[in-house]
Amino acid sequence: MDVIEELVRKNDTKILLVVLDGLGGLPVSEGKTELELARKPNLDSLARRSALGLHIPVDWGITPGSGPGHLGIFGYDPLKFRIGRGILEALGLGLEVGESDIAVRANYATVRYENGKPVVVDRRAGRLPTEENRRITQKLKERIREINGVRVFIEPGMEHRLAVVFRFPEPLPEGSDRINDTDPQATGREPLEPKGENPNAERVAGVVRKFIELASEVLKEEKRANYLLLRGFSQKPKIKSMSERFGLRACCIAVYPMYKGLASLVGMDVIEFEGSSIKDEIDALSRVWDEYDYFFLHVKKTDSYGEDGNWEGKVRVIEEFDSLLPDILSLSPDVLCITGDHSTPSVLKNHSWHPVPLLIHSPYVLGGTAEGFTERECLKGELGIIPSVKIIQLLLANALRLKKFGA
Amino acid sequence: MDVIEELVRKNDTKILLVVLDGLGGLPVSEGKTELELARKPNLDSLARRSALGLHIPVDWGITPGSGPGHLGIFGYDPLKFRIGRGILEALGLGLEVGESDIAVRANYATVRYENGKPVVVDRRAGRLPTEENRRITQKLKERIREINGVRVFIEPGMEHRLAVVFRFPEPLPEGSDRINDTDPQATGREPLEPKGENPNAERVAGVVRKFIELASEVLKEEKRANYLLLRGFSQKPKIKSMSERFGLRACCIAVYPMYKGLASLVGMDVIEFEGSSIKDEIDALSRVWDEYDYFFLHVKKTDSYGEDGNWEGKVRVIEEFDSLLPDILSLSPDVLCITGDHSTPSVLKNHSWHPVPLLIHSPYVLGGTAEGFTERECLKGELGIIPSVKIIQLLLANALRLKKFGA
Repeated sequence: MDVIEELVRKNDTKILLVVLDGLGGLPVSEGKTELELARKPNLDSLARRSALGLHIPVDWGITPGSGPGHLGIFGYDPLKFRIGRGILEALGLGLEVGESDIAVRANYATVRYENGKPVVVDRRAGRLPTEENRRITQKLKERIREINGVRVFIEPGMEHRLAVVFRFPEPLPEGSDRINDTDPQATGREPLEPKGENPNAERVAGVVRKFIELASEVLKEEKRANYLLLRGFSQKPKIKSMSERFGLRACCIAVYPMYKGLASLVGMDVIEFEGSSIKDEIDALSRVWDEYDYFFLHVKKTDSYGEDGNWEGKVRVIEEFDSLLPDILSLSPDVLCITGDHSTPSVLKNHSWHPVPLLIHSPYVLGGTAEGFTERECLKGELGIIPSVKIIQLLLANALRLKKFGA
Repeated sequence: MDVIEELVRKNDTKILLVVLDGLGGLPVSEGKTELELARKPNLDSLARRSALGLHIPVDWGITPGSGPGHLGIFGYDPLKFRIGRGILEALGLGLEVGESDIAVRANYATVRYENGKPVVVDRRAGRLPTEENRRITQKLKERIREINGVRVFIEPGMEHRLAVVFRFPEPLPEGSDRINDTDPQATGREPLEPKGENPNAERVAGVVRKFIELASEVLKEEKRANYLLLRGFSQKPKIKSMSERFGLRACCIAVYPMYKGLASLVGMDVIEFEGSSIKDEIDALSRVWDEYDYFFLHVKKTDSYGEDGNWEGKVRVIEEFDSLLPDILSLSPDVLCITGDHSTPSVLKNHSWHPVPLLIHSPYVLGGTAEGFTERECLKGELGIIPSVKIIQLLLANALRLKKFGA
């Protein structure tokens, strides 16, 4: 229990965290960044009355994935809470992951059989078309539902990728995911047998071996995708919920499964709603406004366009969000935070290590330090450049949800 | 021993730390903070020639009490050196606390007796008037001076509050304060018996039980305040003095007991002087100027007015200090630091988590970064936003009191 948890007190304030995924950028045109090019009068006006700064998701120079990026802004040190790849893949494909689950990434592969033993011919089954993947995975789902009381959940991803979750009847002890990858990392080799490093993991490995056997049986009629290679066995890390740590009834409003999954890992309720636009998200937010203390609203497309190198697209999403900002402000959150989970400069077509613009609005900010909400203006702000994991402390403080430390 | 202690060297420079208690603020009028509203030509002129920045007392978002706030700027990490409530209460009421002492907060309470056993009727004895408290405490002081060789010191506080210090003949081992509160936290219950968690604490608890017995005897003639409830048993934490750590002969010039007490915890000499104005404090400073290396001068009223929500009062105290700044400068300190122990925005009527303006003047600063000494101007300064515990390092460095690290 850290000092913040000792200081938490409850009240009826509402905290809204808006994550514009991949928000920060670099100059793309006329020496200006996407945020500087966007016409966003509402955001700029709010920025003039807000606390500004930038946050560093993991550490200087470190480019975070979506998992660490979000954990940090939720208040969980991403260097301490490491989410396994299997878990992230499963969450990203919409599978739920609980305390009795083992999740793993899988690849369709092509094998030939020599003396009845599989030998890998293509580790990715020729980068199977996604449609093929869906058809084949549907067969797997229908034929493998349970193994010795362990329920099996399978979801197709892109191309040759899929995720598998093994759900045991009871919570699994820590270390139950210590199982080696079965991918031999080279063609011409036999897939490795999954083995557990300890008795709990070996029990899981036994189920996995049976799963591979059953899957091979189902897949033998396929020409290319006739085998499954498994990587990244992982279980849900022990994480205290935001309710336990910060006394917040928290919910998540997001379109993509990955972000819903990350939010559910820290105990947020995931709000279901129709549609996928920012407007639809804000409508959902309004609908549940009375039911929670903390709202995480996730906007994906800023990142998607950044990753495509489409800076005009990223500018447009920022402008779209700006046009809807009045709807958000009309809810009168006590504390409003607008930021990103990491930067995604269009020029890099990728996540990056650059500090992320951060805006916090509440009745208790200094404000008046900058002209608008951009990377360069945020540098002038009262928050400085801070680790992302500290954001929650500032949000709780601005909501007057932290007691004084010491007398 | 941390790296700073390894690097310390002595010379004959003088370091002056002025703490304007609760200095930082938020906009109160015309969008301006108390510091921005104050007419303070001397401070602003000094700021233009000084290193500026802000400091964070404990951590982002954490509102410090006076104890943690001061420990930080003295160079003691407030998360590591936690001062017990009993100690702070005792210091605040002017009691000294040493290594052979156990301090505790006490409340006058009303009890009724059932079968000879006390049952709490009012945990605060009807919030006894302070005058009543003084009269009754005087009786306790006269009748309970010593218990089995342990000296007892009692001082009245406000309303029903008082502090008690038990002084043993020899220094107490760590953990001797592990004794439960006797306050049952509800009426209709019997007060709890104080018990020690370990043999050392149990020895102290034995004395405390005797004390409660004697006090009940003295108080039985009172109608309302006929019992004492005890909370927050604590002993002085093991703290190396500023002399041991930083090679500084340090002294404190303050009016209120709490700050003298905190200074004495880190080994400062407390200077006695007549009067209580800032001018009186500066006179005392001048008088002892030749005798010390490090001077802590504490100005209380900035915080008091902030806590009252009286921003005009806070502005006036800043202006009063400004008018006296030339007297301070005429002493020619080698390093002058002007800051607060925390912010106390008048709009919050309370201590707050906001970074605190920080000014360091020496021959070795860059300067020329800002127009004056305000929250917003300090954001432009060369010091950035730093943890308060680092201030001592900057003061020692500017005094050329730190050797080079490594070759």
